[in-house]
Amino acid sequence: MTAVVTQPNWQAIAREFEAVVGKSGVVQRREELLVYECDGLTSYRERPAIAVLPRTTEEVAEVVKICARASVPFVARGSGTGLSGGALPIENCVLIVTSLMRKILQVDLENQRVIVQPGVINSWVTQTVSGAGFYYAPDPSSQIICSIGGNVAENSGGVHCLKYGVTTNHVLGVKIVTPEGAIVDLGSEIPESPGYDLTGVFVGSEGTLGIATEITLKILKTPESIRVLLADFMSVEAAGATVSDIISAGIIPGGMEMMDNMSINAVEDVVATGCYPRDATAILLVEVDGLEVEADLNSQRVAEICKKNGARNVTVATEADERLTIWKGRKAAFAAMGKMSPDYYVQDGVIPRTKLEYVLREIEALGQKFGYNVANVFHAGDGNLHPLILYNNAIPGALEQVEALGGEILKLCVKVGGSISGEHGIGADKRCYMPEMFSPADLETMQWVRLAFDPQGIANPTKLFPTPRTCGEAAQAHGQKVFEGIERF
Amino acid sequence: MTAVVTQPNWQAIAREFEAVVGKSGVVQRREELLVYECDGLTSYRERPAIAVLPRTTEEVAEVVKICARASVPFVARGSGTGLSGGALPIENCVLIVTSLMRKILQVDLENQRVIVQPGVINSWVTQTVSGAGFYYAPDPSSQIICSIGGNVAENSGGVHCLKYGVTTNHVLGVKIVTPEGAIVDLGSEIPESPGYDLTGVFVGSEGTLGIATEITLKILKTPESIRVLLADFMSVEAAGATVSDIISAGIIPGGMEMMDNMSINAVEDVVATGCYPRDATAILLVEVDGLEVEADLNSQRVAEICKKNGARNVTVATEADERLTIWKGRKAAFAAMGKMSPDYYVQDGVIPRTKLEYVLREIEALGQKFGYNVANVFHAGDGNLHPLILYNNAIPGALEQVEALGGEILKLCVKVGGSISGEHGIGADKRCYMPEMFSPADLETMQWVRLAFDPQGIANPTKLFPTPRTCGEAAQAHGQKVFEGIERF
Repeated sequence: MTAVVTQPNWQAIAREFEAVVGKSGVVQRREELLVYECDGLTSYRERPAIAVLPRTTEEVAEVVKICARASVPFVARGSGTGLSGGALPIENCVLIVTSLMRKILQVDLENQRVIVQPGVINSWVTQTVSGAGFYYAPDPSSQIICSIGGNVAENSGGVHCLKYGVTTNHVLGVKIVTPEGAIVDLGSEIPESPGYDLTGVFVGSEGTLGIATEITLKILKTPESIRVLLADFMSVEAAGATVSDIISAGIIPGGMEMMDNMSINAVEDVVATGCYPRDATAILLVEVDGLEVEADLNSQRVAEICKKNGARNVTVATEADERLTIWKGRKAAFAAMGKMSPDYYVQDGVIPRTKLEYVLREIEALGQKFGYNVANVFHAGDGNLHPLILYNNAIPGALEQVEALGGEILKLCVKVGGSISGEHGIGADKRCYMPEMFSPADLETMQWVRLAFDPQGIANPTKLFPTPRTCGEAAQAHGQKVFEGIERF
Repeated sequence: MTAVVTQPNWQAIAREFEAVVGKSGVVQRREELLVYECDGLTSYRERPAIAVLPRTTEEVAEVVKICARASVPFVARGSGTGLSGGALPIENCVLIVTSLMRKILQVDLENQRVIVQPGVINSWVTQTVSGAGFYYAPDPSSQIICSIGGNVAENSGGVHCLKYGVTTNHVLGVKIVTPEGAIVDLGSEIPESPGYDLTGVFVGSEGTLGIATEITLKILKTPESIRVLLADFMSVEAAGATVSDIISAGIIPGGMEMMDNMSINAVEDVVATGCYPRDATAILLVEVDGLEVEADLNSQRVAEICKKNGARNVTVATEADERLTIWKGRKAAFAAMGKMSPDYYVQDGVIPRTKLEYVLREIEALGQKFGYNVANVFHAGDGNLHPLILYNNAIPGALEQVEALGGEILKLCVKVGGSISGEHGIGADKRCYMPEMFSPADLETMQWVRLAFDPQGIANPTKLFPTPRTCGEAAQAHGQKVFEGIERF
């Protein structure tokens, strides 16, 4: 398995790429490559050797075959908005950028599906079909800029995933180019297809199993009616109990978000919604949808549950502009942190809903121990936390401390029966925490599946899984059997 | 890859099994093995060399390790109700029977999940949690006898899968024994887990990737209110248009079933519901659920759509006993065919809803061409057809003709953009039709994944995929590269 690594002949490889995508589709100048040296996780940076911009499935296949023949690693990149370093280049890699693959290939309203190229922006899908009364459900906060290909790679979530599920629940099939350059169709246009469900494996595989070049998405009928409730609480306990009570009552809100006092004030400073009470300890935003009668009744029931748990005020927004105002603050929350602090680090972990209160208290204690403020704004309904650690990167050693604090928060999530990632992926950021959740046998099984797709280990190597080289001791447990190919890179 | 096949020393292997599960857990006498020689697809029969009945994950692991050391193939079997021969023994195999693994290991209402052993019967899950207001959604017609392990292997569906999805949508995680005898946890108790979604691959893998020994199921809140509508039509066109119109109106019924005149009469002869009009060309059964106001409004809307499309009568059942009467006929439909004909063959294919009318007409024409009556009773909402071909197995050559007719129906499904299996699996029955749906590259990718789990090819070999030996020419297209290990068996 050990390969002799010689420096690739990049000039020759570039000429091969040019023969496939033309001169304008190959980027080699150092200053032009600068824009590709990180994704949304800006604390990690690395420049690729070459960036290539194909336009079709066939061009992607040819580009990948060139990489495979030369045994050089490649990393796929959509809009570069990912938060875990999934699209971060690795040293001496080819970056395959999908930003010229932005065609909506088919709109089939009758069968409620849309086929897109991977560079298509998330919000374009809904824009395309909304006139006919449909929408595409997964809605990451970055939806006006992030690409469907990136959403597939990271199995992205969003505010409305509580009721409607994450990306994997909305991908019917995907045409991929394997790391050997073969064009393979996973899944089909029919929801349940026989054989192994490889669509499900591919979604969330973070670029390690190949590149999606055509994605068949399920679209849903726009609900007849939507209500958004804003309730404010003087304790996190009360807000947490409300979340549990709503779910226990059999109500599945379209979305159910919590923001703490620090987030509320950050948001009001920046976007001034005017409707978030600055003195509240926590607010809940609850969206209910469905038939008019259903949304009406459920919004009454949610309001009663909020009141019973001590909410000071409950506002119900019915009209579209009122609803947008309430959501505007939530959607801008990450960006608003930029005003509070020179830098922030977003963590992404999942806990059982029932542990909400305990975990938030522990996060606060951890923040105090490390000496950092932690703001909380998150998908409360599915227990998907987003602690935002505020820090100043100009202070030497701060990033390391913040990463250590982030790691402690992840371990806490696992300890209470949760997960180290809800929707941002593992990427480069969290690979060393995988052994917290998975046994050596579990990880080894995943590695064998990786090997089934990528025998050379050239597709986004070093991401997603720990290796002795990237994680040292943490990867030792399965160090003997781990797929050795990726250790080359 | 070619192994020297010598006859295994079955006596020595049996003694090893006895050391793990005790003498009573090992079945070797020919007459006792008779009960295991087929599953619900009774036209295929083969006796295993030995049947073993373990009770725990550890016992399953030891049993599989014995098979792996001896390089003998094994087949897992739950209740043996499968309809595609997935649990059919192969020559000289070990049958691993899960019928002593019937413990419900954990009931966690707060987090809406139940952990069960694979031999637990489907309907027991709902029985266990219904008092607390929950239920387990997937409901195959055989739910009072089929096992959860078998449901996982075949990714079983049922009447209520239109709204709530099939088995894979309700399995959060699964502990498996791999074909090498390792105990591996796939997925987790948290709905979205990082790394590859191997739970999704395992569900529906028909015993080829290992044996599930602990399954974590999602349970749902029982809906507040349910209505079942029965509408009768004088043309299949009208019934089909009604199905499309209901979905287009944005209503997602809990279930939406169609039965043709032959099925209606077979059912009335046997269970005498008294509510299925014998002169109708087709009836639709539509269940709507949710809040009382929602079920009320949607049942009115469905009734209007039925009337608009020419339904003669629309009955709405609100009370539990009325609803059960309507469903009783549908659930007994397959069994009722036994009165109409000495034998019947159930086909299972999927088509886009929009092609319903065309495909039913073509099926009728195919039946006439081959000279057999075909009854239709099926999940109309998701286009999952179940043509029942009536024949007499005592007539030489009849089974072969019926299988050929069944194959033509499958090809028709694929031609209109559908699938060769909706919920019964591929098993031994349909493996030769896989190349109708998948390209050689698609099938090869699945084979590599199989190899990742099962390097020796001993887990339910010859099932699910075509090989030159089982399917001749049909498998030639990928004959060169197909996983050669399974050709030994």
